[in-house]
Amino acid sequence: MARPIQSTMQEVPLTITDIFRRAASLFSASQVVTFEGDTSRRADFSEVTERVTRLAAGLRYLGVKPGDRVGTFCWNHQEHLEAYFAVPLLGAVLHTLNVRLSPAQLAHVINSGGDRVVIVDAGLTPLLAAIRSQLTTVEKVVVVGRADTSGLGAVVDYDELLKSSTPLRTLPVLDERQPAAMCHTSGTTGDPRGIVYSHRSVWLHSLAMIANFAFNEHDRIGLMVPMFHVNGWGKPYAAFMCGADLLLPERFLQPQPLLAFVAAERPTIVVGVPTIFQGLLTAAQAAGTELDFIRLGICGGAAVPTTLMQAYQPWFPLIQAWGMTETSPLGMVALPPRGVIEGDSSYWYYRSKTGRPVAGVEVRLIGDSGTPLPWDGKTVGEVEVRGPWVASSHLGGVGRDRFHDGWLRTGDVGTVDELGYVQITDRTKDIIKSGGEWISSLELENQLLAHPAVLDAAVVGIPDERWGERPLVVLAFRPGQSVDPEDLRQFLIGKVPSFWLPESWAVVLAIPKTPVGKQDKKALRQLQVEGRFEVQRLVRVEAVWADRLRGPKGGR
Amino acid sequence: MARPIQSTMQEVPLTITDIFRRAASLFSASQVVTFEGDTSRRADFSEVTERVTRLAAGLRYLGVKPGDRVGTFCWNHQEHLEAYFAVPLLGAVLHTLNVRLSPAQLAHVINSGGDRVVIVDAGLTPLLAAIRSQLTTVEKVVVVGRADTSGLGAVVDYDELLKSSTPLRTLPVLDERQPAAMCHTSGTTGDPRGIVYSHRSVWLHSLAMIANFAFNEHDRIGLMVPMFHVNGWGKPYAAFMCGADLLLPERFLQPQPLLAFVAAERPTIVVGVPTIFQGLLTAAQAAGTELDFIRLGICGGAAVPTTLMQAYQPWFPLIQAWGMTETSPLGMVALPPRGVIEGDSSYWYYRSKTGRPVAGVEVRLIGDSGTPLPWDGKTVGEVEVRGPWVASSHLGGVGRDRFHDGWLRTGDVGTVDELGYVQITDRTKDIIKSGGEWISSLELENQLLAHPAVLDAAVVGIPDERWGERPLVVLAFRPGQSVDPEDLRQFLIGKVPSFWLPESWAVVLAIPKTPVGKQDKKALRQLQVEGRFEVQRLVRVEAVWADRLRGPKGGR
Repeated sequence: MARPIQSTMQEVPLTITDIFRRAASLFSASQVVTFEGDTSRRADFSEVTERVTRLAAGLRYLGVKPGDRVGTFCWNHQEHLEAYFAVPLLGAVLHTLNVRLSPAQLAHVINSGGDRVVIVDAGLTPLLAAIRSQLTTVEKVVVVGRADTSGLGAVVDYDELLKSSTPLRTLPVLDERQPAAMCHTSGTTGDPRGIVYSHRSVWLHSLAMIANFAFNEHDRIGLMVPMFHVNGWGKPYAAFMCGADLLLPERFLQPQPLLAFVAAERPTIVVGVPTIFQGLLTAAQAAGTELDFIRLGICGGAAVPTTLMQAYQPWFPLIQAWGMTETSPLGMVALPPRGVIEGDSSYWYYRSKTGRPVAGVEVRLIGDSGTPLPWDGKTVGEVEVRGPWVASSHLGGVGRDRFHDGWLRTGDVGTVDELGYVQITDRTKDIIKSGGEWISSLELENQLLAHPAVLDAAVVGIPDERWGERPLVVLAFRPGQSVDPEDLRQFLIGKVPSFWLPESWAVVLAIPKTPVGKQDKKALRQLQVEGRFEVQRLVRVEAVWADRLRGPKGGR
Repeated sequence: MARPIQSTMQEVPLTITDIFRRAASLFSASQVVTFEGDTSRRADFSEVTERVTRLAAGLRYLGVKPGDRVGTFCWNHQEHLEAYFAVPLLGAVLHTLNVRLSPAQLAHVINSGGDRVVIVDAGLTPLLAAIRSQLTTVEKVVVVGRADTSGLGAVVDYDELLKSSTPLRTLPVLDERQPAAMCHTSGTTGDPRGIVYSHRSVWLHSLAMIANFAFNEHDRIGLMVPMFHVNGWGKPYAAFMCGADLLLPERFLQPQPLLAFVAAERPTIVVGVPTIFQGLLTAAQAAGTELDFIRLGICGGAAVPTTLMQAYQPWFPLIQAWGMTETSPLGMVALPPRGVIEGDSSYWYYRSKTGRPVAGVEVRLIGDSGTPLPWDGKTVGEVEVRGPWVASSHLGGVGRDRFHDGWLRTGDVGTVDELGYVQITDRTKDIIKSGGEWISSLELENQLLAHPAVLDAAVVGIPDERWGERPLVVLAFRPGQSVDPEDLRQFLIGKVPSFWLPESWAVVLAIPKTPVGKQDKKALRQLQVEGRFEVQRLVRVEAVWADRLRGPKGGR
């Protein structure tokens, strides 16, 4: 008898245009601050949003059409931020390029992206010029700042382009599912792979970030992660959505200048990888600078050592967040659950977890047979994620093995507990399986980093006749310090199951890193195979292996 | 040369199913507490979510199919919450019915909704039985609690239904745009009108609420607004998304029992209309109960008197939020902008504003000619809003005049300032235009409520030969108190432009209210026309009208 009904809600698309209009109309006094090594230059949102409409007009004048890709080869600064908005507002696709890629990788990434225009920092023009002849789709290069432009082909000056352009007053109406931005993975295993974000995914990810970290217009966000890493972890879009200031440290991510920038601009939020936070900590301690004006640190990109979080705790909570290029990146955050507050015995247990999925992201644990495993905090499997800002494929359909039944296979291996806290113990490719049991390289590294003499530690699996694999520890000590491996082994007793205790130890000056600053375990294994480490072998105490079936931190 | 590319993001729909799964998998220990007048009963999310799957199975057994409407005629309690999820999880539509509607309106609403099943509180069965014979689509009535069920037709006991049902383990896959829930407006001007929310709109509104109020799993949300008002202002869905406890006061919204509930359960968030907060304040002051365990009060449904917000300020910020049934309801929030903190001279100016649009909602000001007006804080027009959780129409296509070019006409008249702060001064139908200039009834009422003897005040326009219209003040005093209107007029001098100062005053025991507790200005105007007020007329001081071109609070 009753007729079918339909939703009466408006069909308003979720777009970067909406975020941009919000920033322009509500937050005119919010600031974008760019560090220049000793001084900072600043512009408010009313100026920046006006310049965005000029850049959009300028790019359109250069021939950029909806769907076209515009590459950026830039550090963290206002002009890069302007491109973050101007390109998607046109319906074109922002393609941020990692300045740390090898020349061959860079050429591959630009060509597979099909970029028609590339915006480049003056200081980075030589890197681009070196591969210019290999670029098959680039028609014009826009240079930010004064540079030697030889070898770049047709060149346009960024400031001139803005000056000669009339602000684009009417922004095109966009579909929320059309592409807005593109990043490539760092390609530690094979060619970098492209991920294409939609307007919808960027919009939802921005609101999710505000929901998780309570970003608001009283905040100043210090973006200590490069803007060529996963859209600057999405922070620029979130800041425009909520009116927070953006503090951009250009290329000055070294501890000393970064501390100077932070001390001068007093961010309330800081965002970066563990290495950056370690450097900032050391510099702040040496200078006696209190960082108590910061209210929250967001740390990701690699497992965050508990000791690092604890060192920051008197100033502010440094929270571990997990993500990938394929997840926009926000996927999980390690905040304690209801009822657990600082001082409680389980507080650091939860803070040290990889995290729990944020609203919008679902997690499941998958076993070798491809079926879901229980959330019991013990069963180990591969973590898969799903959500409206998670990738369903890579550009061009490569890497199909990374997707499973609509879910993204993260390549991370670990456990999930009853409350949904994920503990990643390894990358699938870095797994150590000893006597049929898992040994977590990440947990061993985390425990070793708690030793005051240890600067850096990497654990990789090496073949073992009896156990299949055993862990090899590669250590770097702090300047002027060292510890006998036997003492470090003693240090680990009681902290990890005893069958984990490594026999093989090697000391190096520095752990090799990938272009994006992660430990290069592939390189470590290669160095090991080539016999390049001087490995010290300790005596195995087989008797105490009886507790091998206890999980990590089993006595907790 | 480069090929077109498409987004590689997953097509994951935004649904209440996603919110539900999140609550069930991550927040098993979060609580739903229902007040029963003296004691409370409680259930954790693991129990509630299990019961939701039983209710879903039970409703399916009763014949509820995707697209069908299920009405609820209930106060705020756990079973109502279970229906909030079970019905949309089936792909059916939750239709909350206002228990304060007249019998004729109620029959109209149920019939126009086409409800096949109605879930009703035992205590409310007589209201439903009285109109049962007029209901053309209802096949079954599910009764929560023990009641006389005569006259209700085919009846099912809620508890029996759950006991006899096997939990629905496999939830159907839904489209984010399909209808999830429906509310009707209170119908103060004509028949109530239906608004149909989609899964998408509910999902986005939930995340927006978390983003605006930083709801999290350490919160306990005291829902002092009926769950038949705009989905309980969307709080139940937001709480399940973030793991906050839900404290449901059943029908006990009177000051004394509400205070008892609040004091016993210690919410961190409280949500209600000004009248409820006024009652709670009076009761708490009389009892000497400190409410400092609350971190945030969210007040909406009518303009919030500044004095009320200031009275709560020693305990917690009572924030003004604006919304309508047509806006899900969250549209604007009155938080101070960057740089303005408590103690600053403009702090209460911003706190007293109607609010600024939240992320996702756009606002514009429209003049008589239908074109946008400037945001200068002075120009008066009708406020229009747009967004993915804002209505584009009413059910059945009625009320087309409430929509304009894709935007919702709010029926609210006011100004917007340079930072996007909206100040609503009147409903379009309540506008007072005197000598060609606007007089804000809301602002006059707000100022009068600041007087300690005034309990309630309503201002309506009455015809005037010379000025077209002039304001009539209708006053209710606090028990045992009264003030001479001439003194109140003196009290207003300097606070509002002098041409606003009313000559006509009437004192009543209570201001007439609509079924949802708003001032019934239509009734007031009718009473005035019928000569039912004893109106006291003061002498007009024309000379001081010289400042009539100054805006309200012009001297600030």
